[in-house]
Amino acid sequence: MPLDDLSKRLITMALEEDVGPGDVTAVLLPEDLQGQATVVAREPLVVAGIDAFVEVFRQVDPSIDVSFLVTDGTEVPGGTTIAALSGPARPMLVGERTALNLLQRLSGVATIARRAANIVRDTDARVVDTRKTTPGWRRLEKAAVRAGGARNHRMGLFDGILIKDNHIEALGSVSDAVRRARAANGHLLKVEVECESLDQVKEALDAGADIILLDNMTPETMRTAVGLIDGHALIEASGGITFDNLRAVAETGVDLISMGALTHSARAVDLALEWRV
Amino acid sequence: MPLDDLSKRLITMALEEDVGPGDVTAVLLPEDLQGQATVVAREPLVVAGIDAFVEVFRQVDPSIDVSFLVTDGTEVPGGTTIAALSGPARPMLVGERTALNLLQRLSGVATIARRAANIVRDTDARVVDTRKTTPGWRRLEKAAVRAGGARNHRMGLFDGILIKDNHIEALGSVSDAVRRARAANGHLLKVEVECESLDQVKEALDAGADIILLDNMTPETMRTAVGLIDGHALIEASGGITFDNLRAVAETGVDLISMGALTHSARAVDLALEWRV
Amino acid sequence: MPLDDLSKRLITMALEEDVGPGDVTAVLLPEDLQGQATVVAREPLVVAGIDAFVEVFRQVDPSIDVSFLVTDGTEVPGGTTIAALSGPARPMLVGERTALNLLQRLSGVATIARRAANIVRDTDARVVDTRKTTPGWRRLEKAAVRAGGARNHRMGLFDGILIKDNHIEALGSVSDAVRRARAANGHLLKVEVECESLDQVKEALDAGADIILLDNMTPETMRTAVGLIDGHALIEASGGITFDNLRAVAETGVDLISMGALTHSARAVDLALEWRV
Amino acid sequence: MPLDDLSKRLITMALEEDVGPGDVTAVLLPEDLQGQATVVAREPLVVAGIDAFVEVFRQVDPSIDVSFLVTDGTEVPGGTTIAALSGPARPMLVGERTALNLLQRLSGVATIARRAANIVRDTDARVVDTRKTTPGWRRLEKAAVRAGGARNHRMGLFDGILIKDNHIEALGSVSDAVRRARAANGHLLKVEVECESLDQVKEALDAGADIILLDNMTPETMRTAVGLIDGHALIEASGGITFDNLRAVAETGVDLISMGALTHSARAVDLALEWRV
Amino acid sequence: MPLDDLSKRLITMALEEDVGPGDVTAVLLPEDLQGQATVVAREPLVVAGIDAFVEVFRQVDPSIDVSFLVTDGTEVPGGTTIAALSGPARPMLVGERTALNLLQRLSGVATIARRAANIVRDTDARVVDTRKTTPGWRRLEKAAVRAGGARNHRMGLFDGILIKDNHIEALGSVSDAVRRARAANGHLLKVEVECESLDQVKEALDAGADIILLDNMTPETMRTAVGLIDGHALIEASGGITFDNLRAVAETGVDLISMGALTHSARAVDLALEWRV
Amino acid sequence: MPLDDLSKRLITMALEEDVGPGDVTAVLLPEDLQGQATVVAREPLVVAGIDAFVEVFRQVDPSIDVSFLVTDGTEVPGGTTIAALSGPARPMLVGERTALNLLQRLSGVATIARRAANIVRDTDARVVDTRKTTPGWRRLEKAAVRAGGARNHRMGLFDGILIKDNHIEALGSVSDAVRRARAANGHLLKVEVECESLDQVKEALDAGADIILLDNMTPETMRTAVGLIDGHALIEASGGITFDNLRAVAETGVDLISMGALTHSARAVDLALEWRV
Repeated sequence: MPLDDLSKRLITMALEEDVGPGDVTAVLLPEDLQGQATVVAREPLVVAGIDAFVEVFRQVDPSIDVSFLVTDGTEVPGGTTIAALSGPARPMLVGERTALNLLQRLSGVATIARRAANIVRDTDARVVDTRKTTPGWRRLEKAAVRAGGARNHRMGLFDGILIKDNHIEALGSVSDAVRRARAANGHLLKVEVECESLDQVKEALDAGADIILLDNMTPETMRTAVGLIDGHALIEASGGITFDNLRAVAETGVDLISMGALTHSARAVDLALEWRV
Repeated sequence: MPLDDLSKRLITMALEEDVGPGDVTAVLLPEDLQGQATVVAREPLVVAGIDAFVEVFRQVDPSIDVSFLVTDGTEVPGGTTIAALSGPARPMLVGERTALNLLQRLSGVATIARRAANIVRDTDARVVDTRKTTPGWRRLEKAAVRAGGARNHRMGLFDGILIKDNHIEALGSVSDAVRRARAANGHLLKVEVECESLDQVKEALDAGADIILLDNMTPETMRTAVGLIDGHALIEASGGITFDNLRAVAETGVDLISMGALTHSARAVDLALEWRV
Repeated sequence: MPLDDLSKRLITMALEEDVGPGDVTAVLLPEDLQGQATVVAREPLVVAGIDAFVEVFRQVDPSIDVSFLVTDGTEVPGGTTIAALSGPARPMLVGERTALNLLQRLSGVATIARRAANIVRDTDARVVDTRKTTPGWRRLEKAAVRAGGARNHRMGLFDGILIKDNHIEALGSVSDAVRRARAANGHLLKVEVECESLDQVKEALDAGADIILLDNMTPETMRTAVGLIDGHALIEASGGITFDNLRAVAETGVDLISMGALTHSARAVDLALEWRV
Repeated sequence: MPLDDLSKRLITMALEEDVGPGDVTAVLLPEDLQGQATVVAREPLVVAGIDAFVEVFRQVDPSIDVSFLVTDGTEVPGGTTIAALSGPARPMLVGERTALNLLQRLSGVATIARRAANIVRDTDARVVDTRKTTPGWRRLEKAAVRAGGARNHRMGLFDGILIKDNHIEALGSVSDAVRRARAANGHLLKVEVECESLDQVKEALDAGADIILLDNMTPETMRTAVGLIDGHALIEASGGITFDNLRAVAETGVDLISMGALTHSARAVDLALEWRV
Repeated sequence: MPLDDLSKRLITMALEEDVGPGDVTAVLLPEDLQGQATVVAREPLVVAGIDAFVEVFRQVDPSIDVSFLVTDGTEVPGGTTIAALSGPARPMLVGERTALNLLQRLSGVATIARRAANIVRDTDARVVDTRKTTPGWRRLEKAAVRAGGARNHRMGLFDGILIKDNHIEALGSVSDAVRRARAANGHLLKVEVECESLDQVKEALDAGADIILLDNMTPETMRTAVGLIDGHALIEASGGITFDNLRAVAETGVDLISMGALTHSARAVDLALEWRV
Repeated sequence: MPLDDLSKRLITMALEEDVGPGDVTAVLLPEDLQGQATVVAREPLVVAGIDAFVEVFRQVDPSIDVSFLVTDGTEVPGGTTIAALSGPARPMLVGERTALNLLQRLSGVATIARRAANIVRDTDARVVDTRKTTPGWRRLEKAAVRAGGARNHRMGLFDGILIKDNHIEALGSVSDAVRRARAANGHLLKVEVECESLDQVKEALDAGADIILLDNMTPETMRTAVGLIDGHALIEASGGITFDNLRAVAETGVDLISMGALTHSARAVDLALEWRV
């Protein structure tokens, strides 16, 4: 799928901040010098961000040929060559750092998303991401999460209604909040209600919430909530989920488990561009 | 110092990706509802990104008042209130997540930059960052590095000449490369040459390099190189620097030690917006 | 609610196309001449587009004072003064035509949306708009529809899944299509299935569609479909809805009735700027 | 003639508002599925907006092939196939609604422009449009007016001097206004003066106006004005022109008759995209 | 009159190219240091470009106060202080060069426009500029020409019809060209025809040209042409006009004399910012 | 080397200001008329700006073929054909004026840069440009300077530290200023100090300046300064350099001589587009 416009603009900005008025070293190379390089995974990882990597070079010089040997979501051992590049050497050097920076971080996201997805694989729960993404990278990181095998929560404030404490407090009751939310929006959006106690869960259920978010509950309380809800709404567990307790949460019977760490704590994995002579 | 335009545009994009056509939940709150909140550090950290945090709310609604109790570079213990916000509740909710995402990541960068700076504090070496930054965030992260107490390497390809293997290979000799670099650029830029061996160090020195980069050398080799160069050029150590070997490298006598980890492996630190009733 | 960015950009373009390199007649007026004017409804209408009208003058010259005596959604008889303007005469003349063009068309949309909403007022059905809006005006026209008292369908392709013939055909079965739609998207979006026959309605129901769209059915068939669905999904009637058959459709028991005419056939209502001496 | 930049930007915005962060339904179709469709006129109409229609798909995916069987200005009976499309099915679905919305409205403009042009065809008068266009659509609608067979008045405030009441009042006399208008502008622009009475017509004529606009006059008064002016200026009739009185106005001997209805009251004509299996 | 958007964007670009990622020297000054400066004419000149000068500082830091003691069009002797600035020193240094570069060049244009206007002052001819302006500066330079006392020809290709050789050749005859030009454009634009011989002048006159351009003719031929045209069209002399022959051309009786040199050969006049301690 | 983005945007603006809503004369030519033209130097000149010239036509209509017979930096006698164009006539006429305006001015810059470079050719001094460039044209003019054979000073405020009077005054001492400048910036930028007296030269030398700028000194004083500095810093002569004293300055032994006149006083050289029938 082609890259969305916002991500293209992010890449334009990334090149702008790196290249600025021009690469002052590139002029050392003969203008017609051709280069060849490969991208090599230096540790085990799940690949993501191929479209972004390709877009960097497309923006720098479309005559650079970039061929990936894998697709987003492929898990590779350390040492794997995952892509080959060839073309004019000057623009290849211009795009190199930005392209790698993108690929390394997005593969980092996919790699931990895969780890999380594997932990819950044989349960009925699905791991989902949050809005705790790198500003400017939302769509890229959400795609990396999917490549890793986890699912996406809403893309942003526009495509899902999530009623929290402060909304309920301002309006007086959960049922009022749910009713107003439905009236104010298109009928294609579901209404999710954040609950911090079993009492709130009951209220949200009575108010007709489509999804109930269990916020910072223990697995035991979650299990009780799952029994209470009994299939009348989707259930999301959120807050304090780590790789250590993820399995236990999944076994409580919740449908969705959201983990901010998928995006806010991913590190760049080790990927390098190796030049061929 | 006011935020640069590129970072302002990044923030505009970050709001665009999160808010899209509009916050579908915000309409639940009365349009005139006022809110108050504080930003609290939930772990020890070095603050950075205050300008970016403020800019988010300036773009969302300039009538929101944001007051920081600390400045970029302040180290705070967990539990510290670092800022207070007040204003119309709807736009405060709109900007909340984006503002926190920025502050958390940039404070994460400053926090590890501080850790690195402390390790070399009483040596003659300075820790510097690299171009391994989050695409789109270059200037924000470079400022966070400075807030943490480390120094900046070049901002991008435009403000520093760094001659690498492939340049030298294409041109035949280091001295040719240095001479051409000087001719092609304004006389205010220094010329740095990347060296992988002591032989290359000698060549670079003879060629009149202003700065010599020791790439992936052991501390012992570095020490030899420092002796060879003997003050005739600035010396940068680069490649494979970790918190474990940083001190040893600093003690070799190099002037600069570049660490990609300052930016590519920083995680978001734990900062939260707490609403006041 | 402040105008969204996309609509602000539309207004910028509208001024650009009208003013171009400058108003060649404006120079006839003394630069400091002050003007006063009122906006008068010359026929009965429902007002909409106030924010857009105000934004035009804000972009042309923020020192122009624009005060509305009504709000979006107010129904006024012909002859009503709905706004007063005062400020420097030159920029008032520059913005006049663009501001009126916006207000006239958006009030036109609100006026027919009101007419439609009134027809179904005492039924359980709600009139909703479609994606047949004026390109570039989606958000403005959707707001005018709400001001008129009708409801919005999805904002665009991004915030609601609508499975049509060609999707089902490509995938083999309705249930496959619904399952894939859920897997590919965030769990906060509902799935709507377009049906052209009662058999398709049954299939969609079995597949677990959240909403069933009855496409181009007679009121009799709709009534049968409503019985079949029996509250297990929301029901939308679509296709061939006119002011003549709207009431009959509403009485079939459907929940939503979409009318493209709300936006694609609205005409500019008669509103004029009258200058005061 | 290729589309101007402003119209291209309008189309970009139109896609942005419809597609937003992405078509959530498109993913149901296999990525390589090819589609074929035709555009069919479902009522008699004059075609306009072909360039805009084509531009939509060019922006969405340039590999979609769009072939029109007619040109702008062609009058077709209901049932006529006017274009054929083929290409990847996903982006065809993405562009479909925006492209049709443009073509339907612009053909609507051309259709009523043709009707007006036909009424005056055998007289010396020409029907012209006004600045009462859809904000953002000025150039597209002006082209549709030409396709319909009517003529364009000025494009905007920049390419024609139109002196109105408030200018004359501010300057004291018509002759002063005309003189100042000539001094302040390039000598290639004509000066038009709006007149509400025969006295004003005489004044404008004496002042050397190139064009005299007869505002809201009866056909009888217009006839007298035509006699008075006697070929010493172009004459435009404006205000209150409808399809009912258009012929009578044309027979008074005026040169130009401006009708806001050409653009502000055009409705979308019925055009559909029919998919071929 | 406020600066148009295009010129504002030019200034934004000018700052972008000069400041780039930031002024690396500015940091030497204390952030709160206040500065004061005056702008002094170091040679006799006609001032122009004040709005552009002001806009530079408005974009850099709106808290800088810029007060001009003269207006565009004022002729000053060398040594005159024409403006005073005060405000934060850092951004004053950032804007200084760009602001001066604009003011110096635009005053240069006004200065030679004044010289030309003076030469023809007591004749019936007016000196006009051409489209030979600095790309990106059209509107600024046209305003400087007016400030100098000369007049503007058309702003660009959009606001005046100028029929040249190649048009006539392509269409077969001058009268065809004039007729088509009128049909294709709004009736508010005049038609100018470029003539290289007296025969062409006659043809253009017969074809009803509003303006006749005498291209590269000797003053004698011009005089004959003026007699031929005898008031039935405006007359423009063009081609090879210098300060040496300008007076002679003006005395032939032509109405307009266009000089490319007003803009394409203007040099920056000597203006300096002097800092006050 | 492909044109940078900023220069592309300048060209987009230049076309926008000239073409605006469209070329009202172009419609006279048959849409499919093909044209052929050559670009001819009408005086001796050094060519520069080829990339910009080509970019104009690429933006107007990429099907226009532009072939240059020379490269930037070629010196040609008057009468030389330097380029040939062919393609659709309408867009060729649209781009003609903007393309020539660029080529004429940039070749003007290259021509005087060549003149200056020749004067110092057999000395050790190099002529460099300044920041006194045409706002918006910085990169284009800097490239023209290089094409002419002179060298570039810093590109802008971002890539070179230049300490002036006001900095030193604010900080108390030159050595403080130099130290702070080094601390605040990446280690790849050199530090230049502006000196107005031999005392200041000594101070700057002691402070470790990389480059010393001799401001407005006589050749005699410069010679003394050169002796003082004795190879411990690069030396730039600046202020009051003209073609008359350039040789004398070069012979003082300075390394660099900056001349604002290279860009701020260049005039457009005489280049014309000649159409072929």
